Amino acid sequence: MDIATVFGIALAVVLILMAIIIDFDNLEFRIDQLQFFINFPSVLIVIGGTTASVLSSYPLARVLRLGKIIAKVFRQPPEELIETLTLIIDVSKIARKNILAIEDALPSIDNLFLRNGLRLVVDRVDRELIIDIMHSEMRYLDMRRDEEVAILKTFASMAPAYGMMGTLVGLVLMLQNLDDPTTIGPAMAVAILTTFYGTFAANVFFAPWANKLAAQKESDKILREMVRDGVLYIEKGERPDFIEQDLMNYLPPDLRTMYEEMKFESAQESA
Amino acid sequence: MDIATVFGIALAVVLILMAIIIDFDNLEFRIDQLQFFINFPSVLIVIGGTTASVLSSYPLARVLRLGKIIAKVFRQPPEELIETLTLIIDVSKIARKNILAIEDALPSIDNLFLRNGLRLVVDRVDRELIIDIMHSEMRYLDMRRDEEVAILKTFASMAPAYGMMGTLVGLVLMLQNLDDPTTIGPAMAVAILTTFYGTFAANVFFAPWANKLAAQKESDKILREMVRDGVLYIEKGERPDFIEQDLMNYLPPDLRTMYEEMKFESAQESA
Amino acid sequence: MDIATVFGIALAVVLILMAIIIDFDNLEFRIDQLQFFINFPSVLIVIGGTTASVLSSYPLARVLRLGKIIAKVFRQPPEELIETLTLIIDVSKIARKNILAIEDALPSIDNLFLRNGLRLVVDRVDRELIIDIMHSEMRYLDMRRDEEVAILKTFASMAPAYGMMGTLVGLVLMLQNLDDPTTIGPAMAVAILTTFYGTFAANVFFAPWANKLAAQKESDKILREMVRDGVLYIEKGERPDFIEQDLMNYLPPDLRTMYEEMKFESAQESA
Amino acid sequence: MDIATVFGIALAVVLILMAIIIDFDNLEFRIDQLQFFINFPSVLIVIGGTTASVLSSYPLARVLRLGKIIAKVFRQPPEELIETLTLIIDVSKIARKNILAIEDALPSIDNLFLRNGLRLVVDRVDRELIIDIMHSEMRYLDMRRDEEVAILKTFASMAPAYGMMGTLVGLVLMLQNLDDPTTIGPAMAVAILTTFYGTFAANVFFAPWANKLAAQKESDKILREMVRDGVLYIEKGERPDFIEQDLMNYLPPDLRTMYEEMKFESAQESA
Amino acid sequence: MDIATVFGIALAVVLILMAIIIDFDNLEFRIDQLQFFINFPSVLIVIGGTTASVLSSYPLARVLRLGKIIAKVFRQPPEELIETLTLIIDVSKIARKNILAIEDALPSIDNLFLRNGLRLVVDRVDRELIIDIMHSEMRYLDMRRDEEVAILKTFASMAPAYGMMGTLVGLVLMLQNLDDPTTIGPAMAVAILTTFYGTFAANVFFAPWANKLAAQKESDKILREMVRDGVLYIEKGERPDFIEQDLMNYLPPDLRTMYEEMKFESAQESA
Repeated sequence: MDIATVFGIALAVVLILMAIIIDFDNLEFRIDQLQFFINFPSVLIVIGGTTASVLSSYPLARVLRLGKIIAKVFRQPPEELIETLTLIIDVSKIARKNILAIEDALPSIDNLFLRNGLRLVVDRVDRELIIDIMHSEMRYLDMRRDEEVAILKTFASMAPAYGMMGTLVGLVLMLQNLDDPTTIGPAMAVAILTTFYGTFAANVFFAPWANKLAAQKESDKILREMVRDGVLYIEKGERPDFIEQDLMNYLPPDLRTMYEEMKFESAQESA
Repeated sequence: MDIATVFGIALAVVLILMAIIIDFDNLEFRIDQLQFFINFPSVLIVIGGTTASVLSSYPLARVLRLGKIIAKVFRQPPEELIETLTLIIDVSKIARKNILAIEDALPSIDNLFLRNGLRLVVDRVDRELIIDIMHSEMRYLDMRRDEEVAILKTFASMAPAYGMMGTLVGLVLMLQNLDDPTTIGPAMAVAILTTFYGTFAANVFFAPWANKLAAQKESDKILREMVRDGVLYIEKGERPDFIEQDLMNYLPPDLRTMYEEMKFESAQESA
Repeated sequence: MDIATVFGIALAVVLILMAIIIDFDNLEFRIDQLQFFINFPSVLIVIGGTTASVLSSYPLARVLRLGKIIAKVFRQPPEELIETLTLIIDVSKIARKNILAIEDALPSIDNLFLRNGLRLVVDRVDRELIIDIMHSEMRYLDMRRDEEVAILKTFASMAPAYGMMGTLVGLVLMLQNLDDPTTIGPAMAVAILTTFYGTFAANVFFAPWANKLAAQKESDKILREMVRDGVLYIEKGERPDFIEQDLMNYLPPDLRTMYEEMKFESAQESA
Repeated sequence: MDIATVFGIALAVVLILMAIIIDFDNLEFRIDQLQFFINFPSVLIVIGGTTASVLSSYPLARVLRLGKIIAKVFRQPPEELIETLTLIIDVSKIARKNILAIEDALPSIDNLFLRNGLRLVVDRVDRELIIDIMHSEMRYLDMRRDEEVAILKTFASMAPAYGMMGTLVGLVLMLQNLDDPTTIGPAMAVAILTTFYGTFAANVFFAPWANKLAAQKESDKILREMVRDGVLYIEKGERPDFIEQDLMNYLPPDLRTMYEEMKFESAQESA
Repeated sequence: MDIATVFGIALAVVLILMAIIIDFDNLEFRIDQLQFFINFPSVLIVIGGTTASVLSSYPLARVLRLGKIIAKVFRQPPEELIETLTLIIDVSKIARKNILAIEDALPSIDNLFLRNGLRLVVDRVDRELIIDIMHSEMRYLDMRRDEEVAILKTFASMAPAYGMMGTLVGLVLMLQNLDDPTTIGPAMAVAILTTFYGTFAANVFFAPWANKLAAQKESDKILREMVRDGVLYIEKGERPDFIEQDLMNYLPPDLRTMYEEMKFESAQESA
């Protein structure tokens, strides 16, 4: 669970709520004002309409993965780089003794890209073909991530558009029913509400989520490059300490220090 | 038929219609309110004007293909990659026995790019020239697809502009005829309606269609790369199992698994 | 004359005119309303101001070519690719007999890039220098085309800005002269008119013209690449049928078919 | 002095002034209306505020060069390419006789990049080092030009933002002092004025200036490439007629014709 | 302390304050008007909301470095290039005598990238590995800087969005409570205030800061390239005067002159 994302959303919601229900001039709570901001058709237009346009924008199979995409946003980014590096080193030690012995370790490997790569090694697939297959997989994973970011960006750009459409519908209805002047204010308020919903959905939810997924892309790419190099070293039967020294270049400076300390400690313990 | 696109558009239309004809406060249907949203000159300006500007933006021949372009958006993207891979393997088996025998298979091949490529092989055209011709065709297909996306994007950006122009015309007319205050509301409503039409056309139709065509571009490109490699392997008389193993790298990971299962099943059946 | 562009502009103008002078509610013509949309100072600000800012944006010599630039937009894009290919083949046949005999054909060649290139061949200029000179010319033609598109895009972005400035001037004047309430409506109408003019000029004229010029760029580039290859083959004294086969790769698939049919027919006729 | 830029700005100012002081309906001058458009705090916010934000955006040393940057916009772009080419040829003739004799010519060379390059030649600096130094200088000149364009673009984007801030301040003040209804109009007019100032400053001054500087960048780059090649040819002791023939490729087609005519004339005169 | 940034912000704040508290028509101070521009919930929504959305957009660890990021904006950019070049030359002189003697100098080196690089040299790490490690560090430093700019840009784009949301909340509340016409003006003023805050925060603070950090990126990159080359020359035991001559190409023309003068002076002094 990524606390920053959850906290960020909660904070935004609470602040908007405070602006609605607290009367700062008289310092009193006005929970009754909350009703002015609840309007079912406005929610329908903004959330439903935005989803509808996303549905027409992308293949169905992709949109159905939306739940998984959003889940990724909330997932605490694990220290995958260090864990995966350690794992690769461990596997390379096994492989030096008996390359087929890796097979037993495969089921316990969570990273699918690493597991698939090692399976190819166990199956004694030709080195050139391993490179081709891993390259093709990296290309597809990149494409998929780009598409996920694009879907969230489409949400972020469609929400204000539908918000505006709802407001225009409300304005037209209001202007056609001007008989009773006392209803103008509330009718206009309801019309404006849809624009508020659209802006809220875009800036509190969709735009930050798209930002977050896009930021994850670069680190995912580095992780996959490290895995690819690792698998190819293992296939070649390279020495574990050489693999470690080379792959450590994929760690950012702070993680490299952390990794070296971990290694030092475990060396002392085992000593 | 791509159900997601149809459903997405239908959903957006229904939601907007609901916002217009349902009075959520009193929970009653107000179908009479629909008339406020039907205005012939507004439709004329938004749809006609947008089309007019697209006509001045692109060569006539391209715009006339608009029907086909939109049809592409609604076409269910077939599992062309697997079908085409299977087809290439089948043809390569024929070609190994007698390369001229491919000719009989040509009329049944739907993919024009593959059919044209194989015709060059049957005609014993020089390998270098085949590469040049296929490369030139890929370049033109890419250019055409880019242009199709650009046309839909021009629609999406022109529609709100014409919506705004219609609203400005309406506002000017209204402000010049302020004699009767009771007409101000309805006149303003009609003026605003054109902006609504422009936003609606852009966000419910054109922008999602442009997104969808753009998303198809990348997968089309991969398909064509696979076809090009396949045609060249066939020309060279390469072994079918080698071709299969190499071209499978063009399949995304999930399709590759699906393809391997299909192959396994058909192998069992034939066994 | 490119009919699509002329028709597109005419259609947009007619549609806007209809929205102004037809009263669709009472189905009657109201030509008198046209006067509300004619305002000399608004035209002055939008057209004059936009031109003024374009003048400050680009070297004078470039802006003075504006007439030629706009003429290009309306020019029917000729089937130059086929014509030029035929011409190159014809010239290559002459050149095979006597390379100096090309000189007589030069004056009748309209394409300046081709004519200049062939003149270099006739003058027996060094092959490397021909390549350098043609490359330099292609670079400058590309730069000029980019600049032409940029000028039209500046028009398209400046027009709404000046429209808004005119509206702001009108609003300030109106707000400072509120004495007579009956003049507020018409004064506001006139103010809004300038925004209408700006949006109209940008979306009916300048933006589509910029789109069209930009679309011509890619096909111009392909034409020039074909001409360059053709000139170099002629300089080398290459066989006409080889030149034809190679340069045909610059034709898009549909034109290639058309070209082959033309050739087939003329072969039959001459037979 | 670049007449187009001066004329463009003057034209825009005159047109706006005409819209303010001429009453086109009654065809009379209303110079008194000019006062409605003069407001000291609005000028302060737009010009001062925009400058303030530019100051916080770039290193002080860069912003202080602003005068020079704007001067560049108004400088008539000289026919530097031809002049510089002639100069290089002249120097190359001197260098063929005695390379150290170039030194006497150095003080009269205005183009700093050329002068610095030739100084390196005179100092018999190693050829590789000359290439490195000139390359480094080209990189820095490019970076500086990009930054100058960026500064003007920041002005162009900040001006409307500060215009809007001024209008918001004016609106808040007006809405808090609604006691006297007769003051609402003028107060609103003054508020709107700041937005007008912001739009005016951006579209009449800063945006065209940024465009112009950006357009100069490409031609500057070509000039520097020509100078670099020329200096290296001189260092090598290349023949002047060869240098001329090669560097002429840096001239655009029209300048090349002009240069050849000039040469032909001077050849006749000297004959 | 970068005076330009501090002065720029102070100037913008003072100008806005002047527009608020000075009545230019009657030339009197109206400090009481300041109260109209102080509204606690508006500050809460704009600053709190924007921060909330940034929190959901980036990993927590990155956002927590915000203080450091902003500190960078205000830091006077030191003449690091010259200082670092001098330092590298000094170290190279020590290294020529005894490469291990560098170790004593390490603690006094502020530039972490240089210090880490020299530590690798002292540790006699393999040259290829030094290149890999420094390359990896440069990649990460670039990525981090890009992310810092992105965070400030997210602030700059979110602030106006939250400003608008606050205004919409205020408008809805106002329209629902129209009973007392005398409160409409002030209520509307408060609603508009939030938009003012959002525009103010974006254009006075965040956008200029993002500009400044982005401008620092290019010069940081040049510094790091110089350091990398220097470390590798030292590892190789290259002669100090050669290193100096080569690394001077990383100095912009004005700094190079300044550096040569400094050298000349110190040479005279030591003479």
